[in-house]
Amino acid sequence: MTQTAIDPIPRSQAEINQAKIAKTLHQQGTLSRAQIARALHLTAPAISKLAARMIDQELIQEVGDMPGAGNRRSIGLRLKYEGYKVCAVKFARSRIQIGLFDLAGHPLQLMELPSINEASIPKAVTDVQIEVQKFINRDPTIIAVGIAVPGPYLRNEGRIALVTSMQGWRGINFIEAFNDAFTVPTFIEQDARAGALAQSLFVPAFSSTNLAYYLVGEGVGLGVIEQGNLINGAQGGATELGHISIDINGKTCECGNQGCLERYCSAVAIHQAMCQPPYVSHLADASNLNHAAACQLLFYRAEQGDELAQTLVEHIADYVGYGCVNIVNAFNPAHIVIGDIVAGAGQPLLERVRAIVAKRALPALNNQTHICLSHLPADATLMGAAAVAVSNFLLYPTYFARLVQKRTMNSVGKQQSHTTTMPPANQTKGHLPRKDNI
Amino acid sequence: MTQTAIDPIPRSQAEINQAKIAKTLHQQGTLSRAQIARALHLTAPAISKLAARMIDQELIQEVGDMPGAGNRRSIGLRLKYEGYKVCAVKFARSRIQIGLFDLAGHPLQLMELPSINEASIPKAVTDVQIEVQKFINRDPTIIAVGIAVPGPYLRNEGRIALVTSMQGWRGINFIEAFNDAFTVPTFIEQDARAGALAQSLFVPAFSSTNLAYYLVGEGVGLGVIEQGNLINGAQGGATELGHISIDINGKTCECGNQGCLERYCSAVAIHQAMCQPPYVSHLADASNLNHAAACQLLFYRAEQGDELAQTLVEHIADYVGYGCVNIVNAFNPAHIVIGDIVAGAGQPLLERVRAIVAKRALPALNNQTHICLSHLPADATLMGAAAVAVSNFLLYPTYFARLVQKRTMNSVGKQQSHTTTMPPANQTKGHLPRKDNI
Repeated sequence: MTQTAIDPIPRSQAEINQAKIAKTLHQQGTLSRAQIARALHLTAPAISKLAARMIDQELIQEVGDMPGAGNRRSIGLRLKYEGYKVCAVKFARSRIQIGLFDLAGHPLQLMELPSINEASIPKAVTDVQIEVQKFINRDPTIIAVGIAVPGPYLRNEGRIALVTSMQGWRGINFIEAFNDAFTVPTFIEQDARAGALAQSLFVPAFSSTNLAYYLVGEGVGLGVIEQGNLINGAQGGATELGHISIDINGKTCECGNQGCLERYCSAVAIHQAMCQPPYVSHLADASNLNHAAACQLLFYRAEQGDELAQTLVEHIADYVGYGCVNIVNAFNPAHIVIGDIVAGAGQPLLERVRAIVAKRALPALNNQTHICLSHLPADATLMGAAAVAVSNFLLYPTYFARLVQKRTMNSVGKQQSHTTTMPPANQTKGHLPRKDNI
Repeated sequence: MTQTAIDPIPRSQAEINQAKIAKTLHQQGTLSRAQIARALHLTAPAISKLAARMIDQELIQEVGDMPGAGNRRSIGLRLKYEGYKVCAVKFARSRIQIGLFDLAGHPLQLMELPSINEASIPKAVTDVQIEVQKFINRDPTIIAVGIAVPGPYLRNEGRIALVTSMQGWRGINFIEAFNDAFTVPTFIEQDARAGALAQSLFVPAFSSTNLAYYLVGEGVGLGVIEQGNLINGAQGGATELGHISIDINGKTCECGNQGCLERYCSAVAIHQAMCQPPYVSHLADASNLNHAAACQLLFYRAEQGDELAQTLVEHIADYVGYGCVNIVNAFNPAHIVIGDIVAGAGQPLLERVRAIVAKRALPALNNQTHICLSHLPADATLMGAAAVAVSNFLLYPTYFARLVQKRTMNSVGKQQSHTTTMPPANQTKGHLPRKDNI
């Protein structure tokens, strides 16, 4: 699903089956061995053998009696979520957030780096390298770093093809900057695509459905999960909703196109509108704020009953709605989850978006499309960065179990002698180390 | 990839591996046993055993010596394309075409039913049922029927959600009408999606790439193959490019949206433009033609140097180009293949489309996107209907081999005694018969 999956490390059939068990337990919670066997169409003895290995590796644990067949009780198995953590990094245009999460997506620690401008981009990258390695050094159960970057992100090349309003990001090659930066593997994904993974991995209701995560923040992006897989396109440039034109004769965009959706409803576009008539006299203090804070101010004023603010929110919601109609016609997902800064406008925005979709999408599709706001406990893109790492854990649980064992041993060794150092992971192009190096 | 794949019949590991061999031979042509073993990461003895079964079943055949390792010669294996045929049906708005194809997509026989209007739709459906069964009765090597229908096609329900300019089609439930209509399995797919399958299965250069088939005919549709799979969406309503708006304030569409691409560059829209000023006085004879013939007339006049006709073709090409920009931003395919009626405008259209994409898509994406016209030997959607059937053959070759053996025996029996009749296939909802019924 992420960069790594393109070139997976070879796995034995037992490792593939252990990954299936991990994924099933992640999706369904605590299950008995018999339930797992039924779910995976494997025999009970096979599951018992695999489960024994996974308990040994501290990937799963037994959790006491649970109701079994007939009147018999059976022992439950669950993923040992607390045994593994991932470090997540969200790069937005002017903001960088770092978070520590467990495998279930619970936020354990969150921090934000100072605001960025064009000039401070290179320093911000160095800061991330330093801060994240500090996290990793402190905790041997951190198994991977997930990074979310603005799109269109050319995932094979490692660079962003365009960042409207902050072109400096185009100079950063994320694969080069982060691939060997840490002593655990790093996985990089476009922001909205990472957000879609977060919804899929961390919201049980979305775990096995076609889903779109519609990021309306400093940029406008989209991540779509179709039959269990992210839609990437040939270069990772697919689902770039922000640059799909809603008016071929509309506003020009830095991407070369005209009428790009992003020009009408991103936080940047909203902030610009707030600094122009008729809103500027009314919301004059917005010019000194950053884009996110300006939007928060607008939504607050609208909520307080300010009619001009409400008019602007309605105008924005219409455009968010046109984007939703495009999502329905292009991807026909079962769920559209709206997140990031502009989702902060809340229920009034959601209701107007739903009305636009009801009016403009085919009834047969509208009736079966559920549109909602993101309800994750932290920023959906930051949790997306975590999800990118977790999804790789679920693909290669045995690899990460060995990694934690090694890191824990090294950590103990370090505390005892202060001479053993952690060997750097031998990574190329963001891929997992070759198996023989583990 | 098609309707059936949702609920596949259970297959043994040997059957799965035979399907892999069939697919590899289809994609790569003649291969030695050793080459197949390498391609599939299976052992040479395993391949020998599987190949022996497939030769017995007349799925593959040996084709003499071919260069092997060192100076040794080895025997080649190829799919026995001529042993199997599929019957294809294309439903367009006002036209129905039927074709007989071999597994490699070679057209063996083509026919067109009389033009359809709203009133004659039910009769047309009956005619197809009768005509196709005649084909099947004549030839026991026909293994399946593939049907392509206009989108948005709700593939689980079996009905078309909307057909602009010919709403009568909405009354037809294709699953009910065709599922039990024939003595071989039937597979139904949306037209452009079927066309994408045809490009992928029958054009070797496209066999393992992300690909979009852009159907610009009586409707405007799109089929996208992403990492080997068709993008369907939750209900089969995805990739409905014709109803993605290029102007939120543009022309109203029967779907409820405004500015749908289809309203600007479909054959219907072109025909309408030809019957209005300034074109009507110039191309007055177009009003008596059907949409396809009107477009052909326009393209012929443009090719002959008629400036007004050229202006209209350029205008249309721009809109086809805006659709292409949307394809790039939404799906980032490696190839965009333009087909159906409007592709008949040829090189001048293609060049203008490429220029629009070069101007409006991100350079990093445009540089890696190959745009061309369809070069299949027959109508891409009709071949798509064949491809839908062939793709199921490649998934379940052993099932279809048994079917042909049974049909051939019955056919011989019939000729001898005229008493044995072919039992109808036990199909539900377009799925393959359950394994125990084979």
